[in-house]
Amino acid sequence: MDIAAAKAALMHLDLDDNPAAVRAKSRDFFWYSPVLKDRLDHLSADFVVMPKTQDEVIEVLAACHAHDVPVTVRGSGTGNYGQAMPLAGGCVLHMQNMDKVLEISPGRVVTQPGTIIRELDRITRDQSGQELRMFPSTAGTATIGGFICGGSGGVGSVRWGMLRDYGNILRIRVATMEARPRILDFTGRDLARVSHAYGTNGVVTEIEMPLAPAYDWVHVFLTLDDFTHAAALTHALALQDGILLKLATVCEAPVAARYFQRFRGHVSDTDSVIALMVAPHSMDGFLSFLSHEPGARLIYRSDAHDWARDPGPAYEYGWNHTTLRALKVDPSITYLQVRYAGPDLLDKVGAIRARFGDELIQHLEFLRETGVMTAAGLTLVRFSTEARLDEIIRIHEDMGCMVFNPHRYTLEEGGRQTVDARQLDFKRQADPKGLLNPGKMIAWDVPDWDYSRAYDYARMRH
Amino acid sequence: MDIAAAKAALMHLDLDDNPAAVRAKSRDFFWYSPVLKDRLDHLSADFVVMPKTQDEVIEVLAACHAHDVPVTVRGSGTGNYGQAMPLAGGCVLHMQNMDKVLEISPGRVVTQPGTIIRELDRITRDQSGQELRMFPSTAGTATIGGFICGGSGGVGSVRWGMLRDYGNILRIRVATMEARPRILDFTGRDLARVSHAYGTNGVVTEIEMPLAPAYDWVHVFLTLDDFTHAAALTHALALQDGILLKLATVCEAPVAARYFQRFRGHVSDTDSVIALMVAPHSMDGFLSFLSHEPGARLIYRSDAHDWARDPGPAYEYGWNHTTLRALKVDPSITYLQVRYAGPDLLDKVGAIRARFGDELIQHLEFLRETGVMTAAGLTLVRFSTEARLDEIIRIHEDMGCMVFNPHRYTLEEGGRQTVDARQLDFKRQADPKGLLNPGKMIAWDVPDWDYSRAYDYARMRH
Ligand SMILES: Cc1cc2nc3c(=O)[nH]c(=O)nc-3n(C[C@H](O)[C@H](O)[C@H](O)COP(=O)(O)OP(=O)(O)OC[C@H]3O[C@@H](n4cnc5c(N)ncnc54)[C@H](O)[C@@H]3O)c2cc1C
Ligand SMILES: Cc1cc2nc3c(=O)[nH]c(=O)nc-3n(C[C@H](O)[C@H](O)[C@H](O)COP(=O)(O)OP(=O)(O)OC[C@H]3O[C@@H](n4cnc5c(N)ncnc54)[C@H](O)[C@@H]3O)c2cc1C
Repeated sequence: MDIAAAKAALMHLDLDDNPAAVRAKSRDFFWYSPVLKDRLDHLSADFVVMPKTQDEVIEVLAACHAHDVPVTVRGSGTGNYGQAMPLAGGCVLHMQNMDKVLEISPGRVVTQPGTIIRELDRITRDQSGQELRMFPSTAGTATIGGFICGGSGGVGSVRWGMLRDYGNILRIRVATMEARPRILDFTGRDLARVSHAYGTNGVVTEIEMPLAPAYDWVHVFLTLDDFTHAAALTHALALQDGILLKLATVCEAPVAARYFQRFRGHVSDTDSVIALMVAPHSMDGFLSFLSHEPGARLIYRSDAHDWARDPGPAYEYGWNHTTLRALKVDPSITYLQVRYAGPDLLDKVGAIRARFGDELIQHLEFLRETGVMTAAGLTLVRFSTEARLDEIIRIHEDMGCMVFNPHRYTLEEGGRQTVDARQLDFKRQADPKGLLNPGKMIAWDVPDWDYSRAYDYARMRH
Repeated sequence: MDIAAAKAALMHLDLDDNPAAVRAKSRDFFWYSPVLKDRLDHLSADFVVMPKTQDEVIEVLAACHAHDVPVTVRGSGTGNYGQAMPLAGGCVLHMQNMDKVLEISPGRVVTQPGTIIRELDRITRDQSGQELRMFPSTAGTATIGGFICGGSGGVGSVRWGMLRDYGNILRIRVATMEARPRILDFTGRDLARVSHAYGTNGVVTEIEMPLAPAYDWVHVFLTLDDFTHAAALTHALALQDGILLKLATVCEAPVAARYFQRFRGHVSDTDSVIALMVAPHSMDGFLSFLSHEPGARLIYRSDAHDWARDPGPAYEYGWNHTTLRALKVDPSITYLQVRYAGPDLLDKVGAIRARFGDELIQHLEFLRETGVMTAAGLTLVRFSTEARLDEIIRIHEDMGCMVFNPHRYTLEEGGRQTVDARQLDFKRQADPKGLLNPGKMIAWDVPDWDYSRAYDYARMRH
C-alpha cells in the first residue's frame, strides 16, 4: 500500500487528507451498535477523494489499484452496519459530487449515485409527478447509491417489497477495480451481483430506478392502549389492497411517550403508536376501515392537525429512525433486526414479548415479501453485555425468528449467513486484488468461515 | 302500472318506444347462461328513456314513481348475470348520454355514470397520465356506472383487489325513487349500500374513482405444455411485488388452440396459455423471473412481435372474454365463477381437474383478496343439463370452492347467498314502492328465502 504515490497521482482531483476531515468522512452509523462501536471506533482512512465524473472514478480506481491502496466507497455514511467503515484504511471514495439526475420518463429515472434521495424524489416529482417506490427513512441525508449498495428496503416496502425483488432496481452501472477499470451495466438477474454488495466488487456510477406516482402522502399517527391489538390492526390495514399506504409502523408503549419528543402531551406511557403514510385519495377508505376499530385513536394527520410543533414526516418515526430517537434519549438502548414471517407472525411476536418482558420493546414495520405481508422487527433492546445480546439473538432464532444481526460489519453476518456466490464470483473478476472495501466479504477472505462466532477481519488497521 | 301516463309525462325527453329498439335495449349478456336464456329470453321493457342530466333522471324517477312503473337502469347491458334485464317490464333508464368526465386530479376522477370505461381511461390518461385501477374486460363497451353497480373487479385486481375493497371507489351519488327523488352522496362504509346493488336502490348519477398511473402496458402471452406448471408460474409471478402487473390469466389447453382465432399457428392443442399485462419498466424484472422457467415459451409481446394479425389487448383473452371466445366457437359451452382461496388453492384446482376430467376446462384469474393472492376460476363447462350444472356447482362447494353462480339473476344467488342488510335497508328508504329493478333482490320480495332452489320472481312479465 503506497498511500503517498496514490495521493500524488490524484492531487489534481478534489482530494482531502486533513486528518480530522478524513476521520469524519471515514465514519458511518456503526456506533448504533455498542459491539461495532467497540470494534470500529478508532478507524480512519488516509485520504478522501470526491470525483465529479465517471472518468474521475476510473482515475481513482486505476491509481489505487496501481499502488495497492484499499478503496471504500461512501455515499452519506448513514449505514448502520458499519458498511462504509474503511477497515484497512486507504482511500475513501466520496460520491456526493456525482449527484446529477440524468433522465426521467414514465416509470423510470436514471441518476448518478451521489444524489441525496429526498432531492431525487423532489426532482422526479417536480418534473414528472413521480417518486421512488421505496426509500430508507434516512432519505433526507442518504444517497441513492448508498441505498442500492448498503440498504435493503424501507418506506414503500409495505407496497413494493424489498430492493432485491425483481423490478425494484432497473439497471446498475459499475466501474471495476483493475489496472484499466471497465464500465459494466447490470440488469435483471445480474443486478444481484452488485446490489447490496457494500461496494466490495465495483463502484456504482449510474443507476436506473423504477418510479411510482407521487402523492401528497398524509402522515398519520394512531394510539391504542394495547400493543397486540395495535399490531393486528396495522397488519390488517396493510393487507387492504385498495388503501394505498407507503408506511405501516407500530411501536409498543412506551416508545412514543419516552422517545418521541414532539409527541409529549399527545400520548401517555401506555399508548402504543401506529405511524402511517396514506395516499390522500385513500384517506376516506382508511377512515372507513378505522371506524371498525373503536379502540384506535387518531391523534395526528398531517393534512389537518392542531399540534403546536410539527412532528415532521411519519417515516422519521419508523424504520431505524425509531432506534435513533431512542438512542438519543437513552444511549444504553440497542436493537435487533428481526424477520417475522409465516401465517402466525403476530403469534411469534407475542411469544417473544412473553419470553423477554421489559428487556425488549417491540417496533414492527410491515412489508411485503414476494406477495405475502410480513413484519420486520426493529426491536429495541436494553443492552447489558455482548454475551447477553448474542444470547437474545440465539433465542430469537430458536423461536423461529430470523435475525439480520446489526452488530456485525460483514455482508454475510448482517444477512442470511451464507456466501453469495454471485457477488463473490463477480468480485473475482472486478477486484482481483481485493482492494474494494476490504474485510466486508468473509467469503473472499476466509471461504470456509462457519459463523459460529463473530468474524474478525485480520488486517483491520489498529 | 300506468305505462301510457308515464310516457306522456316524459315525452319531451329522449324517449323511445319502438318495440324492436326497446327489446334490443332490454337485453344484456344473460344469454351467456343457458339457464338464464331459458328464463329471460322473452323479456322486454315498454319504453326506454335516455336522460342527459341528473335533473332529467329525477324527472323520470318521479314520473315512474307516480305511475307505478318499474325502472331498470342500463349502462351498456354487458352484464352476464342478467343484471339489467327488466323482469317486470316498464322503463329502461339508459345512461349512455350522461357521459361527461367532470374533474381529474392526482389519484382521482369524477365522472358521470354513462361514460364508456375505455373512453374514461383515455381521457384521464391524456389529461393526467393516470388510469383506472381496475376495469372489466368489457371496458371497450361497458359504462363505469354499470361496472360500479353490476361488476366486481377485473383487469387490475391482481394489484388492487376488488371494487368492494375500501378505497377502490371514492364516492357514489344516487337519486332515489320517491315522489320527490332525493340526491345523496355515499362515501366510506356507506358505499356498500349502493355499490354492486344492480340499481335496485338508487340511480347512480355521479361517481368518484381512484386513479393509478397510466403505463403503456406490454401485453404478453406465454405457453407451457403443462397446466399445473403454468398455473403455479402465474401465481408465483403475481406474487412478485416489484413486477407491476395488471393482468395474470392462465387458460388450460386447448382453450387457446380451439377458441383464440388469432393464436392459430402460434399454439398447439397441448399448449396452456398465460396472458399478462406488464408495465414497460417491469419487463426486465419479468424476463429475469422468466429466465428461471425454461418450460415457458414467450410467444407474444405487444412491444415487439411478428404476428401477422394483431391479437388485440391481452385482457380481451381474460376474465369473461375467454368465455365469450369459447361461446362464439362452441355454443354448447357454459361456465362457472369459482373462488379458489387458501394456501392450497392450486391443490384445490388440481383436485377439481382430477374430479371432472374433460367436462371442465380451467381458466384462472389471479387477484388479491385483502392482501392475499387468490384465484377466480372462470371455468368453461361442457353443458349437458341444468341438473348436471347444479350438481357440478354442488361438488365444487363440497370440495371447498365457493361458486358465484352465474346462472342466477338475483343479487343474493350470484353472490354469497346471504341478505345484504345494508342494501336492503337502503332500498326501504330509497325505493319504498319497490320499483327499481324489481325481482333482483330476493330479500325484498321473500325475506325468508332459503336458497336451496333457484329463485323464481313471481311477478316476472310473461
Ligand atoms: C436512522 C437510520 C435509519 C435507516 N433506515 C433505513 C431504512 O429504512 N432502510 C434501509 O435500507 N436502510 C436504512 N438505514 C441504513 C442507511 O441509512 C441506508 O441504507 C442508506 O440508504 C445508506 O445510504 P448512504 O448514502 O448513507 O450510504 P453509505 O452508508 O455511505 O454506504 C452504504 C454502503 O454502500 C456502499 N456504497 C455507497 N455508495 C456506493 C457506490 N456509489 N458504489 C458502490 N458502493 C457504494 C458503501 O461502501 C457502503 O458499504 C438507516 C440508517 C439509519 C442511521
Ligand atoms: C365478455 C364479458 C366480460 C366481462 N368481464 C367482466 C370483468 O372482468 N369484471 C366484471 O366485474 N364484470 C365483467 N363482466 C360483466 C360486465 O361487463 C361488467 O360488470 C360491466 O362493467 C357492466 O357495465 P354495463 O355498462 O354494461 O352495465 P349494465 O350491464 O348495463 O348494468 C349492470 C348493472 O348495473 C345497473 N346499472 C347500470 N348503470 C347504473 C346506474 N347509473 N345506476 C344504477 N344502476 C346502474 C344495471 O341495472 C345492472 O343491474 C363481463 C361481461 C362480459 C359479457
